[in-house]
Amino acid sequence: MAQGLRAAIDFLLYEWLRVQTLATRARYAEHSRETFDAVLDTCERIARDKYAPFNRLVDTEEPRFDGERVILPAATHEAWRAYADSGMLCAAQDYAIGGMQLPYVVEAAGNAFFAAASVSIGAGMLTVGNANLLMAHGTAAQQRAFALPQFAGRFAGTMCLSEPQAGSSLSDIATRAVPDGPGHEDDPLGPRYRLRGHKMWISAGEHELTENIVHLVLAKIPGADGRLPAGVKGISLFIVPKWLVDRDGRPTGQRNDVALVGLNHKCGWRGTPNTLLNFGEGRFPVAGAGVGSGLDGQGAGAIGYRVGAAGDGLRQMFHMMNEARIGVGMAATMLGMAGYLASLDYARTRQQGRRLGPAGKDPAQPPVRIIEHADVKRMLLAQKAYCEGALALELYCARLVDELRTGDAEAAQQAHLLLELLTPIAKSWPSEWCLEANSLAIQVHGGYGYTRDFPVEQYWRDNRLNMIHEGTHGIQAQDLLGRKVLMQGGSALRALRARIDATAGRAGALPEWAQASAVLQQAWQRIEGAAHAAWASGDPTEALANAVPYMQAFGHGVIAWLWLDVACATVGREDPASVGRRQACHYFFRYELPKIDAWLAVVQARDRTCADMPEEAF
Amino acid sequence: MAQGLRAAIDFLLYEWLRVQTLATRARYAEHSRETFDAVLDTCERIARDKYAPFNRLVDTEEPRFDGERVILPAATHEAWRAYADSGMLCAAQDYAIGGMQLPYVVEAAGNAFFAAASVSIGAGMLTVGNANLLMAHGTAAQQRAFALPQFAGRFAGTMCLSEPQAGSSLSDIATRAVPDGPGHEDDPLGPRYRLRGHKMWISAGEHELTENIVHLVLAKIPGADGRLPAGVKGISLFIVPKWLVDRDGRPTGQRNDVALVGLNHKCGWRGTPNTLLNFGEGRFPVAGAGVGSGLDGQGAGAIGYRVGAAGDGLRQMFHMMNEARIGVGMAATMLGMAGYLASLDYARTRQQGRRLGPAGKDPAQPPVRIIEHADVKRMLLAQKAYCEGALALELYCARLVDELRTGDAEAAQQAHLLLELLTPIAKSWPSEWCLEANSLAIQVHGGYGYTRDFPVEQYWRDNRLNMIHEGTHGIQAQDLLGRKVLMQGGSALRALRARIDATAGRAGALPEWAQASAVLQQAWQRIEGAAHAAWASGDPTEALANAVPYMQAFGHGVIAWLWLDVACATVGREDPASVGRRQACHYFFRYELPKIDAWLAVVQARDRTCADMPEEAF
Repeated sequence: MAQGLRAAIDFLLYEWLRVQTLATRARYAEHSRETFDAVLDTCERIARDKYAPFNRLVDTEEPRFDGERVILPAATHEAWRAYADSGMLCAAQDYAIGGMQLPYVVEAAGNAFFAAASVSIGAGMLTVGNANLLMAHGTAAQQRAFALPQFAGRFAGTMCLSEPQAGSSLSDIATRAVPDGPGHEDDPLGPRYRLRGHKMWISAGEHELTENIVHLVLAKIPGADGRLPAGVKGISLFIVPKWLVDRDGRPTGQRNDVALVGLNHKCGWRGTPNTLLNFGEGRFPVAGAGVGSGLDGQGAGAIGYRVGAAGDGLRQMFHMMNEARIGVGMAATMLGMAGYLASLDYARTRQQGRRLGPAGKDPAQPPVRIIEHADVKRMLLAQKAYCEGALALELYCARLVDELRTGDAEAAQQAHLLLELLTPIAKSWPSEWCLEANSLAIQVHGGYGYTRDFPVEQYWRDNRLNMIHEGTHGIQAQDLLGRKVLMQGGSALRALRARIDATAGRAGALPEWAQASAVLQQAWQRIEGAAHAAWASGDPTEALANAVPYMQAFGHGVIAWLWLDVACATVGREDPASVGRRQACHYFFRYELPKIDAWLAVVQARDRTCADMPEEAF
Repeated sequence: MAQGLRAAIDFLLYEWLRVQTLATRARYAEHSRETFDAVLDTCERIARDKYAPFNRLVDTEEPRFDGERVILPAATHEAWRAYADSGMLCAAQDYAIGGMQLPYVVEAAGNAFFAAASVSIGAGMLTVGNANLLMAHGTAAQQRAFALPQFAGRFAGTMCLSEPQAGSSLSDIATRAVPDGPGHEDDPLGPRYRLRGHKMWISAGEHELTENIVHLVLAKIPGADGRLPAGVKGISLFIVPKWLVDRDGRPTGQRNDVALVGLNHKCGWRGTPNTLLNFGEGRFPVAGAGVGSGLDGQGAGAIGYRVGAAGDGLRQMFHMMNEARIGVGMAATMLGMAGYLASLDYARTRQQGRRLGPAGKDPAQPPVRIIEHADVKRMLLAQKAYCEGALALELYCARLVDELRTGDAEAAQQAHLLLELLTPIAKSWPSEWCLEANSLAIQVHGGYGYTRDFPVEQYWRDNRLNMIHEGTHGIQAQDLLGRKVLMQGGSALRALRARIDATAGRAGALPEWAQASAVLQQAWQRIEGAAHAAWASGDPTEALANAVPYMQAFGHGVIAWLWLDVACATVGREDPASVGRRQACHYFFRYELPKIDAWLAVVQARDRTCADMPEEAF
């Protein structure tokens, strides 16, 4: 399996995106294709040795809570150690703090191997995202105490946003943060607060993989009247470590008042403990100068250090959320790839049935391998088109992140616009279509695919999470049609169209792709036209009633564009992989892109069939 | 939940299909809406009391094999007993043998409640199908010994078709049946054979719910040269009881040589043990007059009694398969309905977020229930349109079975044609779209839907089986486009079009539905045209390369027709349920039916993109 994945990644990185040219930039001057390859080799090896063999194990041996500790399989501990030792937690960081100064696109490609091998073992994405947020918004002391130990793998990180009553709607969070008595502003680790509240759906919220866990917690600071400010503008961000630390980040041995209430038992993605946490309810009372002694068992609150300005929490958290959304998209993509490659292996060996037509009429003929059946080829080619298309999207977005960080001002501005627009697609499209790919992988296996003796049913279960976490499908669609296509007077959409038109221009000059080029441009005229029609009345309830179908059409339009761009990169090559990429591109244009008309029709018409459905009529 | 299901069934049975009029037929003369209602009441009650409370239990407490016995939860035993005691195993049978002489459509509606409550507890469908096959093809002695005890719930039945190397391709089965010595033709229970072979994917293949298990086994009788005949024409059908019986069907206490090799561990549908069985390998040797003593531990073979003529096995088994396919479609539909109704309940109570537009801008306003969000309404209305549309299809097909059995010659012939054509749709469409409904039910629940604390993730896992068993999606599509649309010079398709045109004619006279009526007829012109285009070259490899997209389009066309027909049955009614049915119909025409163009385009073009993909290019 790993071979097919590596080949797909190598082609996209070096032949399509030409990331080796990043070495001409000052930040990456010590890099080259050789150093990038060495990173990919390492990731591939660790994923193969420490992740893949245990993917089923972490599904069957779910995290358990014995009342005191969360128990994870030994394999999870070893995988974490190997991952941390690889340096990947610090891959993109400066040499000065022990990083590799890798481009983000190479980091993302390296991490893809772990997601394909066992998506739920790893908590690396959250840890890196947490530390990156602190590097962007924390003080030097906060970075030293909380970020650097995460890059080193000694601490792990979480993001604590949702609450039982506040999932998608963060404005309704009720976790309360009050200043921790006189002098609370003077703590070397940042303004010190006491937090009380419940946080739900916290991945890796409790475990013993690391010395400490750094929770980044959204909470509200009550006003003078004691009430929590309404809306998202009242949200602040806090560092709440599981174990309190000294100013250098060394755990003091004093537990902070963060307690596991329970584990969520999930359909899939079971290797990662998902938790409900209580902050400041007195399970681990912390004495202090602040309100209440904390020694009466009631709990004075968990100690938290504010990051940045009060009320700025959501904006800061979004720094982490955007990376997380690309990470989710990549995870969905890799689950899809894993299923595709597993079903391809199966189809190449499993014998069943005979060819259609006269040649197959003779039952005395031996059966053929199922890859010889057209419908099995269809299911394989669909998977390839979905998953390698999604991989192109994720790597393209990752490359844009590098442009944002190291491009010139104009290029960085373009990259910013494109990323804003493409992030909801990078999150949503693989979540939907690589899940569909996993279903096809089951189907290729027949009954065997439905058993737990083969890996594909787990990929499918694991992948179902991705349309939910880090912003649901509906949230992504509102972000796309409600904000991103409108932003800066439509300039993000114009930036995307410029890139699409450039691809179409190149493809239009090639006989094999001239028709697809025209089809792509027509499709994008309809996608743009539908957005205008949706907003024609200016009423968001009309415009957004069909935001999800719009996002589906937009996503298919993006993937069609990227496939055409990839196909152009294969011109003149007749090796099997290039032939296969071109065929996948044809598949996407012939079987998939035509689906957008059905989705766009309801957007264009501002169809109110759903919105007008009376509740009592369901 | 049950309330919404009952209302949907009542409407379709009595207001739409008007099944109460069946009471004018001689066979059903003692029936009336009152007796039908009494059956539905009983089913609803038993399903609520004995099935629904244990649906999660049978998922977590999977069948276990301790080396001797298959252990099922006590609840499964109690559910079986209650089901058998209800008389539903014998519902459609003659009064003379203890049956209720119920119309099949009422039997199917009653069984729907069990599928919705816990799809995998029940093995009733296989038992009834097995016994029905014997009533159609067995001798009087076979019926008395093996069918009647199944109708009474003392025995259970299986269908043993697949083998490890022969799943979809039954022509490759290798189970061998040899005459059991001199006089084998004279056994009162039928010609006696010894069987040896392996059977895979056998649902309810081993358990202790009943005194005995009646396996209906496909096997081949070797020719004079000792070789098995090639192809499906060499397949014969045998009754192989787990415990040998005397001529009255009383178990003799002598075990037959049928041994459980192991249980399959599935993604879902876990309440039903799914088995690999060894026939005649000597685990339970049976002495006899035949080849080999059977006492040397080698095994002379399991004793089996041939049903009907040698070589006629597959045709006879298909008698059972067609019922099984409608049963699978109904199971898929009920899983969809269960998810729909669960997510509807959730959406009516869960509070999250605020309305779009100015009214929602004020964060001091309390959150709304999520059913007030247009995108949640969209996900609920899609589920309703999929699942109630599928329910209409299943009940329509069940009603056709009654017409086949009790209609006049012309009506029976029409029903036969329509059933042949619609069976692959009745099997495949709910398997695909009610699974999609289950995914939407998870999505409505957000993160909670992904946990095992809510039922929807299990419905989704359970439902994934339905595209696989009883003929995969690909097999159904080949059946549809390769056989059924062609049969008798296209007369099945003409029969269907006549019904569709009749509906369109009625709808065309109604202002609300005139446009949908025209759209439906245009859609069916395209569906028919695509079939002609597919077969234009007469080459099955070209015609069938896109059989699945064709089936998807055909299925959407069928459901659109049925929704329009249902909508016509609500004319003049303004109660909420009628409003809801009309809105679901509008949804289907506006959001779903337009999808057929993308599917048909590749059929029409005899697109070879998939078929031409070189294997090495994947």
